[in-house]
Amino acid sequence: MYLTQALHRAAQLNPELPATVFGERVRTWAQCKDRVARLAAALHGLGVASGDRIAILAQNSDHYHEFLLAAPWADAVVVPLNTRWSVPEIAFSLQDSGARVLVVDDTFLDLVGEIRSAATVVDAYVHSGERRTPSGVYGFEKLIEQAEPVEDARRGGADLAAIYYTGGTTGTPKGVMLSHTNLVTAALGALATGQFMEPYGRLLHCAPMFHLADGAGWIARNMVGGSHVILPGFDPKVVADAVEKYRITDMFLAPTMIQMFVDSPRAAERDLSSLRNLLYGSSPISQAVLERTMRLLPEVRLLQAYGMTELSPTTTVLTSADHRDPALLRSAGRAVPIAEVKIVDSDDVDVPCGTVGEVVARGPHVMLGYWNRPQETATALRGGWMHTGDGGYLDENGYLYIVDRIKDMIVSGGENVYSAEVENALSRHPAVASCAVIGVPDPDWGERVHAVVVLQPGMSADAAELRDHCGTLIARYKAPRSVDFVDALPLTPAAKIAKHELRKQYWRGESRAVS
Amino acid sequence: MYLTQALHRAAQLNPELPATVFGERVRTWAQCKDRVARLAAALHGLGVASGDRIAILAQNSDHYHEFLLAAPWADAVVVPLNTRWSVPEIAFSLQDSGARVLVVDDTFLDLVGEIRSAATVVDAYVHSGERRTPSGVYGFEKLIEQAEPVEDARRGGADLAAIYYTGGTTGTPKGVMLSHTNLVTAALGALATGQFMEPYGRLLHCAPMFHLADGAGWIARNMVGGSHVILPGFDPKVVADAVEKYRITDMFLAPTMIQMFVDSPRAAERDLSSLRNLLYGSSPISQAVLERTMRLLPEVRLLQAYGMTELSPTTTVLTSADHRDPALLRSAGRAVPIAEVKIVDSDDVDVPCGTVGEVVARGPHVMLGYWNRPQETATALRGGWMHTGDGGYLDENGYLYIVDRIKDMIVSGGENVYSAEVENALSRHPAVASCAVIGVPDPDWGERVHAVVVLQPGMSADAAELRDHCGTLIARYKAPRSVDFVDALPLTPAAKIAKHELRKQYWRGESRAVS
Repeated sequence: MYLTQALHRAAQLNPELPATVFGERVRTWAQCKDRVARLAAALHGLGVASGDRIAILAQNSDHYHEFLLAAPWADAVVVPLNTRWSVPEIAFSLQDSGARVLVVDDTFLDLVGEIRSAATVVDAYVHSGERRTPSGVYGFEKLIEQAEPVEDARRGGADLAAIYYTGGTTGTPKGVMLSHTNLVTAALGALATGQFMEPYGRLLHCAPMFHLADGAGWIARNMVGGSHVILPGFDPKVVADAVEKYRITDMFLAPTMIQMFVDSPRAAERDLSSLRNLLYGSSPISQAVLERTMRLLPEVRLLQAYGMTELSPTTTVLTSADHRDPALLRSAGRAVPIAEVKIVDSDDVDVPCGTVGEVVARGPHVMLGYWNRPQETATALRGGWMHTGDGGYLDENGYLYIVDRIKDMIVSGGENVYSAEVENALSRHPAVASCAVIGVPDPDWGERVHAVVVLQPGMSADAAELRDHCGTLIARYKAPRSVDFVDALPLTPAAKIAKHELRKQYWRGESRAVS
Repeated sequence: MYLTQALHRAAQLNPELPATVFGERVRTWAQCKDRVARLAAALHGLGVASGDRIAILAQNSDHYHEFLLAAPWADAVVVPLNTRWSVPEIAFSLQDSGARVLVVDDTFLDLVGEIRSAATVVDAYVHSGERRTPSGVYGFEKLIEQAEPVEDARRGGADLAAIYYTGGTTGTPKGVMLSHTNLVTAALGALATGQFMEPYGRLLHCAPMFHLADGAGWIARNMVGGSHVILPGFDPKVVADAVEKYRITDMFLAPTMIQMFVDSPRAAERDLSSLRNLLYGSSPISQAVLERTMRLLPEVRLLQAYGMTELSPTTTVLTSADHRDPALLRSAGRAVPIAEVKIVDSDDVDVPCGTVGEVVARGPHVMLGYWNRPQETATALRGGWMHTGDGGYLDENGYLYIVDRIKDMIVSGGENVYSAEVENALSRHPAVASCAVIGVPDPDWGERVHAVVVLQPGMSADAAELRDHCGTLIARYKAPRSVDFVDALPLTPAAKIAKHELRKQYWRGESRAVS
């Protein structure tokens, strides 16, 4: 199994079909194969050798697609960088992975100088875009033009294909090493659920291609044939226009993107009848958004995928058939055919159906490990199972329900409290703009349910009122016993709430089972 | 990737769902896992060690299913034997593979003595069935009862999973070595076409389980969850009854079986509304049978799979959507997502679209090789592509059309003649019971189209009449220039016509490019 096999197949079976559509630029699979073979040769010319890491920092484009394929073609390992990172984070990932080449687009071109001083490991910078390429930086198009096509190295199987850096809510990001087998089998597992990607259809990329949530669809689309229609990023209006214009059959959106798309007036004005599969992931969809989605797109098959980068990423799928059962809408679905999923307690012992514990997974899609971090790898993969850090349970039919991150779960007076559930309840109070619920040390309860709340501008509420509000929605013992009001919550680089920051001030000097 | 992973997953997610239904005997996935773990332990007790080959000679049953899983669980390699073979052929396969254990059912129990004298390599015989187990033979149930469950060896990846002996139309059968990755990726490739096997449905086994045409469905069903309903063999009446009784969702039939099933009065009397996918393979379906099938089963999705044991086996699929286009019905479909298929000439050079040559395939489903036959392996896999021996062409959309076996193609006066096409024309003459068309040496034409014909009892026809008949259906140069009338055609053990036997008498002393 190797990622470029899909390119060979597509170029041979459907040479004249568009591989990529990016604005006015359309490239067929035959052209794509030729360009990838030239780009790989150019990478060799830049000194890239077998197993070398090469990175890309760019918004979505057809060049991104070509670079993802040129890396294995050249026997190299791709490192897609998060476009939301600061320069120190970018530099860290480049240094940590030892990347020899960095491709940047117009958006990041001005950062090259700064990155160059911080990331000493990078030998060559390549610019892909419309702006003038500065001296000391190679031009993406020029590299392709000037190179002669090289044979595919056919890097594959257990060979390292990519290093994806995870957000790192605590500490520095970790590089997740994924092999070709990891990525291809994960895509096959998702496809084997019987939907996921219309054969020979058109997939819209508007979620970031540096993230595997979009990358999973990218691999599957390459494998089943058809075309990629690529937008630089997400804008609900542009997405609605693109669906109509390109007769899009499949797209991946994060739940917040679905909400913005469905609620956009433009979506109602456009012909969206070509859509077949709407994939979403990272979190369950709210009943309200789902209903609006089904009203707007009654013929579309909704599919939720759950997983994580370490699982390449798709591990469970809630199919469109599952979506018809309201009771299942809170579920993340069932294990894809290649995966096993189970729940264990803190001693790694299996727990019975319905009992909350840590979600662990096994299968050919489990990462090779964390780059240069044998200790963290051994811990994450202990016993041959990937420990997700997610708390959840399985029902008697194998449906997975995620309740919280394990480390965000609170044990108060011997009862488990899931911060996510309390946050949901708190959020429904009209005065609450955003909130985070954490466990803090308590002499009576072991841990106490504590909320940190940002109020809506011009509105007010006190702790007692919020506690009473929660008591109408969830069990009384889950309601916050104490509340801090703040102006803003600390965020991680991935724009998630940095709960470890919030916990820090309370746990200084105290020990907590999980931090 | 390992074949037993599906068992772990099913036993954990759906422990109480039936794994197998065989007559009145129903076993759940939890029971199946326990029995497989015990059977594997019993195999160790019989001396089976890592990588040892263990064989089975039996009609379909739930025990067949258990044995197929117990082999890798015990770190062994399964050798499923063809139930139509003679004792010398059985003994050859046992000796050639070095099988240490042979499982036989009631049908083959009486052959044990004869096999024992011919196959000296076998240490232990196991009997699965209702008859009394003779002394010197182990009982299948007793072995399971008396053993304690052992841990899964988790044999997988590139490890040898099975040796399937191919019919061998010329010479002795060859053992095709398939790895776990071969078999699992082939099943995933078929599943990734978007149909093939209803998730959590019920698959009917009535084609022989020793053959991978049925085995491919067996693997896919294990992977997507659901149940196996197993019949000892094919009987159209019993099949119709079983579809109604067990609400069968999927079944695999050879085209001749479809014809017998569709034409059986019982099929019209039974409720077949549960059927979702009807898979067929080995040869394209005739328009007439297809129309009758669609009339009987208007809601069923028809799917043709093409491949061979050496390709694990599924390589191209004609989907149900494809079946709606009459022009595609002669096609074997398009490459599954894991496979590349192309056409090459006799020098292994790619030929253009529409040109007939040898069908070759590449992908993770290509066999490891022929057991103990490095020379034949190197020839079959030269250049990294499996050479199928099938003649065919691809159209501009990547649909594959098989015209003949390469070695059965005739070059007469510089024109290619496909024996299959001539045989189809000949068969439509009312006096022709069966026929074979071969190329024989000819001083003027190089090769001459020659027919060997068995007439219907009590009917007559001469060479000129048959030639004229063919001339009304196919180009004149393809019609047989000479005809032999015989009482019967020689057959191979796999019940195919032994054309090499027919050719032998004509080519003695002459050389032919392909024999």
